[in-house]
Amino acid sequence: MLGPGGKKFDQEAARYLATLPGFSLICGRYEGVDHRVRQNLIDGEISIGDVVLAGGEVAACVVIEAVTRLLPGVMGNSQSPLTESFDDRGLLEEPQFTRPIEFDGISVPDILRSGDHAAIARWRLAQALWHTQTWRPDLIAARGGLTPDEQALLEAVVPLSYPLPFAFRPATSSELSGTHSHESPTKETP
Amino acid sequence: MLGPGGKKFDQEAARYLATLPGFSLICGRYEGVDHRVRQNLIDGEISIGDVVLAGGEVAACVVIEAVTRLLPGVMGNSQSPLTESFDDRGLLEEPQFTRPIEFDGISVPDILRSGDHAAIARWRLAQALWHTQTWRPDLIAARGGLTPDEQALLEAVVPLSYPLPFAFRPATSSELSGTHSHESPTKETP
Repeated sequence: MLGPGGKKFDQEAARYLATLPGFSLICGRYEGVDHRVRQNLIDGEISIGDVVLAGGEVAACVVIEAVTRLLPGVMGNSQSPLTESFDDRGLLEEPQFTRPIEFDGISVPDILRSGDHAAIARWRLAQALWHTQTWRPDLIAARGGLTPDEQALLEAVVPLSYPLPFAFRPATSSELSGTHSHESPTKETP
Repeated sequence: MLGPGGKKFDQEAARYLATLPGFSLICGRYEGVDHRVRQNLIDGEISIGDVVLAGGEVAACVVIEAVTRLLPGVMGNSQSPLTESFDDRGLLEEPQFTRPIEFDGISVPDILRSGDHAAIARWRLAQALWHTQTWRPDLIAARGGLTPDEQALLEAVVPLSYPLPFAFRPATSSELSGTHSHESPTKETP
Protein backbone atom coordinates (compact mmCIF):
# COMPACT_ATOMS: atom_id res chain seq x y z
CA MET A 1 0.00 0.00 0.00
CA LEU A 2 1.20 3.53 -0.71
CA GLY A 3 1.03 5.85 2.27
CA PRO A 4 2.90 8.68 3.97
CA GLY A 5 3.69 6.52 7.01
CA GLY A 6 5.33 3.78 4.99
CA LYS A 7 8.90 2.68 4.54
CA LYS A 8 10.80 5.05 2.26
CA PHE A 9 10.89 3.84 -1.34
CA ASP A 10 14.45 4.08 -2.63
CA GLN A 11 16.66 2.32 -5.16
CA GLU A 12 17.33 -0.55 -2.76
CA ALA A 13 13.57 -1.06 -2.40
CA ALA A 14 13.16 -0.95 -6.19
CA ARG A 15 15.85 -3.59 -6.61
CA TYR A 16 14.14 -5.81 -4.04
CA LEU A 17 10.69 -5.48 -5.62
CA ALA A 18 12.22 -6.29 -9.03
CA THR A 19 13.26 -9.71 -7.68
CA LEU A 20 9.66 -10.68 -6.84
CA PRO A 21 7.44 -12.54 -9.31
CA GLY A 22 4.98 -9.66 -8.93
CA PHE A 23 3.18 -7.41 -6.48
CA SER A 24 0.02 -5.37 -6.11
CA LEU A 25 -0.21 -1.74 -5.01
CA ILE A 26 -3.15 -0.21 -3.15
CA CYS A 27 -3.60 3.56 -3.38
CA GLY A 28 -5.55 5.57 -0.84
CA ARG A 29 -7.20 8.81 -1.77
CA TYR A 30 -7.70 11.98 0.32
CA GLU A 31 -7.97 10.62 3.88
CA GLY A 32 -6.29 7.29 3.16
CA VAL A 33 -7.78 3.82 3.52
CA ASP A 34 -9.62 2.24 6.42
CA HIS A 35 -7.09 1.12 9.01
CA ARG A 36 -8.59 -2.39 8.95
CA VAL A 37 -7.15 -2.77 5.46
CA ARG A 38 -3.72 -1.81 6.74
CA GLN A 39 -4.02 -4.22 9.67
CA ASN A 40 -5.29 -7.22 7.77
CA LEU A 41 -4.94 -7.14 4.01
CA ILE A 42 -1.53 -5.75 3.05
CA ASP A 43 2.12 -6.86 3.27
CA GLY A 44 3.40 -3.39 4.11
CA GLU A 45 3.22 0.30 3.44
CA ILE A 46 5.66 2.31 1.34
CA SER A 47 6.11 6.04 0.89
CA ILE A 48 7.88 7.95 -1.87
CA GLY A 49 8.79 10.88 0.38
CA ASP A 50 7.70 13.52 2.83
CA VAL A 51 5.18 15.18 0.59
CA VAL A 52 1.38 15.16 0.74
CA LEU A 53 -0.40 13.95 -2.38
CA ALA A 54 -4.13 13.76 -3.05
CA GLY A 55 -3.83 10.03 -3.63
CA GLY A 56 -1.37 7.20 -4.04
CA GLU A 57 -1.72 6.77 -7.79
CA VAL A 58 1.18 8.97 -8.88
CA ALA A 59 3.35 7.46 -6.14
CA ALA A 60 2.42 4.03 -7.50
CA CYS A 61 3.58 5.17 -10.95
CA VAL A 62 6.95 6.08 -9.43
CA VAL A 63 7.23 2.59 -7.93
CA ILE A 64 6.16 0.88 -11.16
CA GLU A 65 8.58 2.88 -13.33
CA ALA A 66 11.54 2.41 -11.00
CA VAL A 67 10.95 -1.34 -10.67
CA THR A 68 10.04 -2.03 -14.28
CA ARG A 69 13.20 -0.50 -15.70
CA LEU A 70 15.26 -2.96 -13.62
CA LEU A 71 13.63 -6.00 -15.22
CA PRO A 72 15.73 -7.79 -17.84
CA GLY A 73 14.93 -6.65 -21.36
CA VAL A 74 13.06 -3.48 -20.40
CA MET A 75 15.93 -1.06 -21.02
CA GLY A 76 17.34 -1.14 -24.54
CA ASN A 77 20.92 -1.09 -23.33
CA SER A 78 21.37 -3.61 -20.55
CA GLN A 79 24.31 -1.60 -19.23
CA SER A 80 22.22 1.48 -18.59
CA PRO A 81 20.96 0.66 -15.09
CA LEU A 82 24.55 0.17 -13.93
CA THR A 83 25.91 3.49 -15.13
CA GLU A 84 23.20 5.75 -13.73
CA SER A 85 22.80 7.73 -10.56
CA PHE A 86 22.30 5.97 -7.23
CA ASP A 87 23.37 2.60 -8.52
CA ASP A 88 26.42 0.52 -7.70
CA ARG A 89 28.85 3.42 -7.95
CA GLY A 90 27.02 5.50 -5.33
CA LEU A 91 27.57 8.76 -7.24
CA LEU A 92 25.41 11.19 -9.12
CA GLU A 93 25.84 10.84 -12.85
CA GLU A 94 28.33 13.06 -14.63
CA PRO A 95 26.80 15.75 -16.85
CA GLN A 96 25.79 14.62 -20.33
CA PHE A 97 26.34 16.48 -23.60
CA THR A 98 24.84 15.83 -26.99
CA ARG A 99 24.57 17.50 -30.41
CA PRO A 100 24.90 20.14 -31.69
CA ILE A 101 28.52 20.79 -30.72
CA GLU A 102 27.64 24.45 -30.41
CA PHE A 103 24.20 25.69 -29.36
CA ASP A 104 23.43 29.37 -28.82
CA GLY A 105 27.16 30.07 -28.57
CA ILE A 106 27.79 27.40 -25.92
CA SER A 107 30.07 24.52 -26.88
CA VAL A 108 30.48 20.95 -25.71
CA PRO A 109 33.72 20.68 -23.65
CA ASP A 110 36.76 20.20 -25.89
CA ILE A 111 37.91 17.04 -24.16
CA LEU A 112 34.77 15.16 -25.24
CA ARG A 113 35.73 15.83 -28.87
CA SER A 114 39.40 14.85 -28.37
CA GLY A 115 39.02 11.16 -29.19
CA ASP A 116 41.24 10.29 -26.20
CA HIS A 117 39.01 7.67 -24.62
CA ALA A 118 41.11 7.15 -21.47
CA ALA A 119 41.23 10.89 -20.78
CA ILE A 120 37.49 11.16 -21.41
CA ALA A 121 36.78 8.35 -18.94
CA ARG A 122 38.91 10.07 -16.28
CA TRP A 123 37.19 13.39 -16.95
CA ARG A 124 33.75 11.77 -16.68
CA LEU A 125 34.57 10.14 -13.35
CA ALA A 126 35.96 13.42 -12.05
CA GLN A 127 32.79 15.27 -13.08
CA ALA A 128 30.63 12.64 -11.39
CA LEU A 129 32.69 13.09 -8.22
CA TRP A 130 32.42 16.90 -8.43
CA HIS A 131 28.69 16.72 -9.06
CA THR A 132 28.13 14.44 -6.08
CA GLN A 133 30.51 16.22 -3.72
CA THR A 134 28.88 19.58 -4.42
CA TRP A 135 25.19 18.65 -4.48
CA ARG A 136 24.90 15.49 -2.44
CA PRO A 137 27.86 15.20 -0.05
CA ASP A 138 25.79 12.68 1.94
CA LEU A 139 26.26 10.20 -0.93
CA ILE A 140 30.05 10.63 -0.74
CA ALA A 141 29.90 10.08 3.02
CA ALA A 142 27.71 7.00 2.53
CA ARG A 143 30.37 5.34 0.38
CA GLY A 144 33.10 6.11 2.90
CA GLY A 145 34.54 9.32 1.45
CA LEU A 146 36.94 9.69 -1.43
CA THR A 147 39.86 7.38 -2.16
CA PRO A 148 43.33 8.96 -2.59
CA ASP A 149 43.07 8.29 -6.35
CA GLU A 150 39.72 10.08 -6.49
CA GLN A 151 41.10 12.99 -4.48
CA ALA A 152 44.01 13.31 -6.91
CA LEU A 153 41.61 13.17 -9.84
CA LEU A 154 39.55 16.04 -8.39
CA GLU A 155 42.68 18.15 -8.05
CA ALA A 156 43.61 17.50 -11.69
CA VAL A 157 40.27 18.18 -13.39
CA VAL A 158 38.41 21.50 -13.60
CA PRO A 159 34.74 21.07 -12.61
CA LEU A 160 31.88 22.07 -14.89
CA SER A 161 29.70 24.88 -13.58
CA TYR A 162 26.22 24.27 -12.19
CA PRO A 163 23.36 26.61 -11.38
CA LEU A 164 23.01 27.41 -7.69
CA PRO A 165 21.04 24.82 -5.75
CA PHE A 166 17.37 25.68 -6.06
CA ALA A 167 16.18 27.71 -3.08
CA PHE A 168 12.59 27.01 -2.03
CA ARG A 169 12.17 30.42 -0.44
CA PRO A 170 11.75 34.02 -1.56
CA ALA A 171 14.89 35.24 -3.32
CA THR A 172 17.19 37.66 -1.51
CA SER A 173 17.98 41.00 -3.06
CA SER A 174 21.49 39.88 -4.04
CA GLU A 175 20.01 36.93 -5.88
CA LEU A 176 17.54 39.25 -7.57
CA SER A 177 20.41 41.01 -9.30
CA GLY A 178 20.54 37.90 -11.50
CA THR A 179 17.68 36.36 -13.44
CA HIS A 180 15.38 35.54 -10.50
CA SER A 181 13.19 38.60 -10.78
CA HIS A 182 9.68 37.33 -9.99
CA GLU A 183 9.99 37.78 -6.21
CA SER A 184 9.64 40.71 -3.84
CA PRO A 185 11.12 44.05 -4.91
CA THR A 186 14.73 44.94 -4.27
CA LYS A 187 15.53 47.91 -2.08
CA GLU A 188 15.88 51.07 -4.13
CA THR A 189 18.69 53.47 -3.37
CA PRO A 190 17.36 57.04 -3.20
CA MET B 1 14.15 20.71 -14.07
CA LEU B 2 13.61 17.26 -12.57
CA GLY B 3 16.81 15.32 -11.93
CA PRO B 4 18.44 12.96 -9.43
CA GLY B 5 21.02 15.56 -8.43
CA GLY B 6 18.44 18.16 -7.53
CA LYS B 7 17.21 19.57 -4.26
CA LYS B 8 14.90 17.15 -2.49
CA PHE B 9 11.24 17.87 -3.17
CA ASP B 10 9.33 17.84 0.11
CA GLN B 11 6.26 19.50 1.61
CA GLU B 12 8.18 22.71 2.31
CA ALA B 13 9.16 22.86 -1.35
CA ALA B 14 5.56 22.22 -2.40
CA ARG B 15 4.35 25.07 -0.18
CA TYR B 16 6.96 27.37 -1.70
CA LEU B 17 6.10 26.49 -5.29
CA ALA B 18 2.41 27.02 -4.50
CA THR B 19 3.17 30.67 -3.69
CA LEU B 20 4.57 31.35 -7.18
CA PRO B 21 2.39 32.64 -10.01
CA GLY B 22 3.51 29.59 -11.97
CA PHE B 23 6.48 27.49 -13.02
CA SER B 24 7.62 25.18 -15.79
CA LEU B 25 9.10 21.72 -15.36
CA ILE B 26 11.64 20.13 -17.72
CA CYS B 27 11.91 16.35 -17.71
CA GLY B 28 14.97 14.49 -18.91
CA ARG B 29 14.70 10.98 -20.28
CA TYR B 30 17.19 8.08 -19.99
CA GLU B 31 20.56 9.87 -19.84
CA GLY B 32 19.18 13.24 -18.74
CA VAL B 33 19.42 16.52 -20.59
CA ASP B 34 22.42 18.24 -22.11
CA HIS B 35 24.38 19.95 -19.34
CA ARG B 36 24.23 23.24 -21.27
CA VAL B 37 20.50 23.33 -20.51
CA ARG B 38 21.24 22.92 -16.80
CA GLN B 39 23.91 25.62 -16.93
CA ASN B 40 21.95 28.21 -18.86
CA LEU B 41 18.22 27.68 -19.15
CA ILE B 42 16.82 26.57 -15.78
CA ASP B 43 16.24 28.08 -12.33
CA GLY B 44 17.19 24.93 -10.48
CA GLU B 45 16.96 21.16 -10.31
CA ILE B 46 14.66 19.19 -8.02
CA SER B 47 14.54 15.50 -7.18
CA ILE B 48 11.72 13.45 -5.68
CA GLY B 49 14.05 10.94 -4.02
CA ASP B 50 16.94 8.52 -4.32
CA VAL B 51 15.39 6.34 -6.95
CA VAL B 52 16.24 5.96 -10.63
CA LEU B 53 13.41 6.57 -13.06
CA ALA B 54 13.43 6.27 -16.85
CA GLY B 55 12.42 9.92 -17.14
CA GLY B 56 11.24 12.91 -15.18
CA GLU B 57 7.57 12.80 -16.22
CA VAL B 58 6.23 10.81 -13.28
CA ALA B 59 8.34 12.89 -10.89
CA ALA B 60 6.80 16.00 -12.47
CA CYS B 61 3.34 14.55 -11.79
CA VAL B 62 4.30 14.21 -8.11
CA VAL B 63 5.33 17.87 -8.04
CA ILE B 64 2.19 19.01 -9.86
CA GLU B 65 -0.16 17.03 -7.61
CA ALA B 66 1.52 18.11 -4.37
CA VAL B 67 1.55 21.79 -5.37
CA THR B 68 -1.90 21.90 -6.98
CA ARG B 69 -3.69 20.55 -3.93
CA LEU B 70 -2.31 23.47 -1.90
CA LEU B 71 -3.90 26.08 -4.16
CA PRO B 72 -7.04 27.76 -2.80
CA GLY B 73 -10.21 26.10 -4.06
CA VAL B 74 -8.59 22.88 -5.28
CA MET B 75 -9.44 20.75 -2.28
CA GLY B 76 -13.17 20.51 -1.52
CA ASN B 77 -12.63 21.02 2.20
CA SER B 78 -10.25 23.90 2.76
CA GLN B 79 -9.31 22.44 6.15
CA SER B 80 -7.97 19.25 4.63
CA PRO B 81 -4.40 20.36 3.90
CA LEU B 82 -3.99 21.36 7.55
CA THR B 83 -5.05 18.07 9.09
CA GLU B 84 -2.93 15.76 7.00
CA SER B 85 0.45 14.17 7.41
CA PHE B 86 3.62 16.28 7.25
CA ASP B 87 1.80 19.52 7.67
CA ASP B 88 1.79 21.99 10.53
CA ARG B 89 1.39 19.34 13.21
CA GLY B 90 4.53 17.45 12.15
CA LEU B 91 2.93 14.05 12.77
CA LEU B 92 1.76 11.18 10.64
CA GLU B 93 -2.00 11.08 10.37
CA GLU B 94 -3.95 8.93 12.80
CA PRO B 95 -5.57 5.82 11.26
CA GLN B 96 -8.89 6.39 9.55
CA PHE B 97 -11.98 4.19 9.78
CA THR B 98 -15.10 4.23 7.63
CA ARG B 99 -18.19 2.11 6.97
CA PRO B 100 -19.21 -0.64 7.42
CA ILE B 101 -18.87 -0.78 11.20
CA GLU B 102 -17.99 -4.45 10.85
CA PHE B 103 -16.16 -5.88 7.84
CA ASP B 104 -15.10 -9.50 7.62
CA GLY B 105 -15.50 -9.80 11.39
CA ILE B 106 -13.31 -6.75 12.14
CA SER B 107 -14.97 -3.80 13.85
CA VAL B 108 -14.31 -0.09 14.01
CA PRO B 109 -12.91 0.78 17.48
CA ASP B 110 -15.70 1.25 20.02
CA ILE B 111 -14.57 4.71 21.05
CA LEU B 112 -15.27 6.11 17.57
CA ARG B 113 -18.91 5.09 17.99
CA SER B 114 -19.20 6.46 21.53
CA GLY B 115 -20.34 9.96 20.58
CA ASP B 116 -17.92 11.45 23.14
CA HIS B 117 -16.26 13.99 20.89
CA ALA B 118 -13.63 15.15 23.41
CA ALA B 119 -12.57 11.56 24.10
CA ILE B 120 -12.46 10.82 20.37
CA ALA B 121 -10.24 13.85 19.74
CA ARG B 122 -7.83 12.72 22.50
CA TRP B 123 -7.81 9.18 21.11
CA ARG B 124 -7.10 10.46 17.59
CA LEU B 125 -4.18 12.59 18.76
CA ALA B 126 -2.79 9.66 20.75
CA GLN B 127 -3.02 7.38 17.70
CA ALA B 128 -1.25 9.98 15.54
CA LEU B 129 1.51 10.16 18.14
CA TRP B 130 1.77 6.35 18.34
CA HIS B 131 1.82 6.06 14.55
CA THR B 132 4.58 8.65 14.23
CA GLN B 133 6.65 7.44 17.18
CA THR B 134 6.63 3.86 15.89
CA TRP B 135 7.14 4.40 12.17
CA ARG B 136 8.84 7.76 11.85
CA PRO B 137 10.61 8.64 15.12
CA ASP B 138 12.64 11.17 13.10
CA LEU B 139 9.48 13.30 12.77
CA ILE B 140 9.02 13.28 16.57
CA ALA B 141 12.65 14.29 16.99
CA ALA B 142 12.24 17.05 14.37
CA ARG B 143 9.46 18.67 16.41
CA GLY B 144 11.55 18.52 19.60
CA GLY B 145 10.21 15.31 21.16
CA LEU B 146 6.98 14.82 23.08
CA THR B 147 5.48 17.30 25.53
CA PRO B 148 4.59 16.04 29.03
CA ASP B 149 0.89 16.17 28.05
CA GLU B 150 1.57 14.05 24.96
CA GLN B 151 3.60 11.58 27.01
CA ALA B 152 0.71 11.23 29.49
CA LEU B 153 -1.72 10.74 26.62
CA LEU B 154 0.39 7.91 25.19
CA GLU B 155 0.37 6.19 28.58
CA ALA B 156 -3.41 6.43 28.79
CA VAL B 157 -4.36 5.21 25.30
CA VAL B 158 -3.84 1.73 23.85
CA PRO B 159 -2.28 1.94 20.39
CA LEU B 160 -3.86 0.35 17.35
CA SER B 161 -1.88 -2.47 15.79
CA TYR B 162 0.05 -2.04 12.55
CA PRO B 163 1.63 -4.53 10.19
CA LEU B 164 5.38 -4.88 10.59
CA PRO B 165 7.34 -2.26 8.64
CA PHE B 166 7.81 -3.55 5.13
CA ALA B 167 11.15 -5.33 4.74
CA PHE B 168 12.76 -4.90 1.31
CA ARG B 169 14.72 -8.14 1.53
CA PRO B 170 14.06 -11.86 1.05
CA ALA B 171 11.77 -13.22 3.76
CA THR B 172 13.29 -15.30 6.56
CA SER B 173 12.04 -18.81 7.19
CA SER B 174 10.16 -17.70 10.30
CA GLU B 175 8.36 -15.07 8.26
CA LEU B 176 7.58 -17.69 5.65
CA SER B 177 5.51 -19.59 8.20
CA GLY B 178 2.96 -16.81 7.68
CA THR B 179 1.51 -15.61 4.41
CA HIS B 180 4.78 -14.64 2.68
CA SER B 181 5.29 -17.86 0.75
CA HIS B 182 6.70 -16.70 -2.60
CA GLU B 183 10.34 -16.62 -1.51
CA SER B 184 13.08 -19.22 -1.25
CA PRO B 185 12.18 -22.61 0.22
CA THR B 186 12.34 -23.19 3.97
CA LYS B 187 14.71 -25.80 5.29
CA GLU B 188 13.04 -29.19 5.47
CA THR B 189 13.56 -31.31 8.59
CA PRO B 190 14.46 -34.90 7.59
